[in-house]
Amino acid sequence: MQKSVNRVVLEVTAKEPAPGRPLLDLVLAVPRPIMLKKIFTQAASLGVGHIFLVNANRVEKSFFSASLLQDNNYRKYLLHGLEQSVDTMLPSVSIHKRFRPFLEDELPELMHDYSACLVAHPDAPLLHKIAADTLKGAVLLAVGPEGGWIDFEVEKFREQDFTEIGLGKRILRVDTAVVSLCAQLSFLKKLGGGQGRA
Amino acid sequence: MQKSVNRVVLEVTAKEPAPGRPLLDLVLAVPRPIMLKKIFTQAASLGVGHIFLVNANRVEKSFFSASLLQDNNYRKYLLHGLEQSVDTMLPSVSIHKRFRPFLEDELPELMHDYSACLVAHPDAPLLHKIAADTLKGAVLLAVGPEGGWIDFEVEKFREQDFTEIGLGKRILRVDTAVVSLCAQLSFLKKLGGGQGRA
Repeated sequence: MQKSVNRVVLEVTAKEPAPGRPLLDLVLAVPRPIMLKKIFTQAASLGVGHIFLVNANRVEKSFFSASLLQDNNYRKYLLHGLEQSVDTMLPSVSIHKRFRPFLEDELPELMHDYSACLVAHPDAPLLHKIAADTLKGAVLLAVGPEGGWIDFEVEKFREQDFTEIGLGKRILRVDTAVVSLCAQLSFLKKLGGGQGRA
Repeated sequence: MQKSVNRVVLEVTAKEPAPGRPLLDLVLAVPRPIMLKKIFTQAASLGVGHIFLVNANRVEKSFFSASLLQDNNYRKYLLHGLEQSVDTMLPSVSIHKRFRPFLEDELPELMHDYSACLVAHPDAPLLHKIAADTLKGAVLLAVGPEGGWIDFEVEKFREQDFTEIGLGKRILRVDTAVVSLCAQLSFLKKLGGGQGRA
């Protein structure tokens, strides 16, 4: 540590590695701001790497102009999540106001980075039907708005080779669904890893 | 439907069965009221059957006298969760102000109802080390307060043959931990069921 009249220089020594990351990114139809705050905090605490905020038919246009999404105001909610889980890697966030250009033009480029691309949709097969070994790399998970994706949107995800996954008969709030799916994916990845090593 | 000047009698015909229940009960060290509201709603939406609210060393005494826990004031938060998941079975709640009598005198009687009794504890083996076939019946899951159970409490759970399970290196908020563990248990029970039928 150096100290002088005008400045203090701290040297940081990281004694322990950051907690393991589930290698999970989210595509999230923009929810209402109060819900989005909860998801930012919980997604950061669960180690999500990137959050793509996208439009969808059932997203209210006003959600994009929420003050939460201006000037990085959402940053503090991500930091709360990191503090909670003693992590240091801030999830990055990008905003995509047009659904179709995102899916048709941007996603195909991004998808090379993922070993599995999943879209949450009611009544789709549950996650345990997914082969654990397809989840060995990074996973991209798309979660719809309250009320779900409309058929057109699910069709667009299908065209991009996303696999539909469900959470059973219970209709969950978006934040509960995000945490549940992250927990199950993390679990399934560990099962896959266990099988791989065995 | 019968109608008269003074009353209307509605007859309800349930056309569809209620959503499947994960057969999961919770032992929960009483968290602060704002957190408990979140957990009540999310636990109800996930189909938890009973919530035992218990004391623990890191529970503030004032939490037991919170207005939320008087006169069934918590009921509306449970109802929110049921409405969300289109369920009709209200979780029941019981309050146990003394940890040791609950664990030593009440729990042993209750435990016959469960095929597995688990206590969440950092650094314990992850849930995927649990044999899925022990989860075929009802599961009782104990989740500690912020800061976790103290050693004495974990020891008491051990004496009652609870199995310790962890959620990995990340330290999660109590509500995130409850949803994550419920999701993973529900997942693991489905895996077990699948193996059982195969």
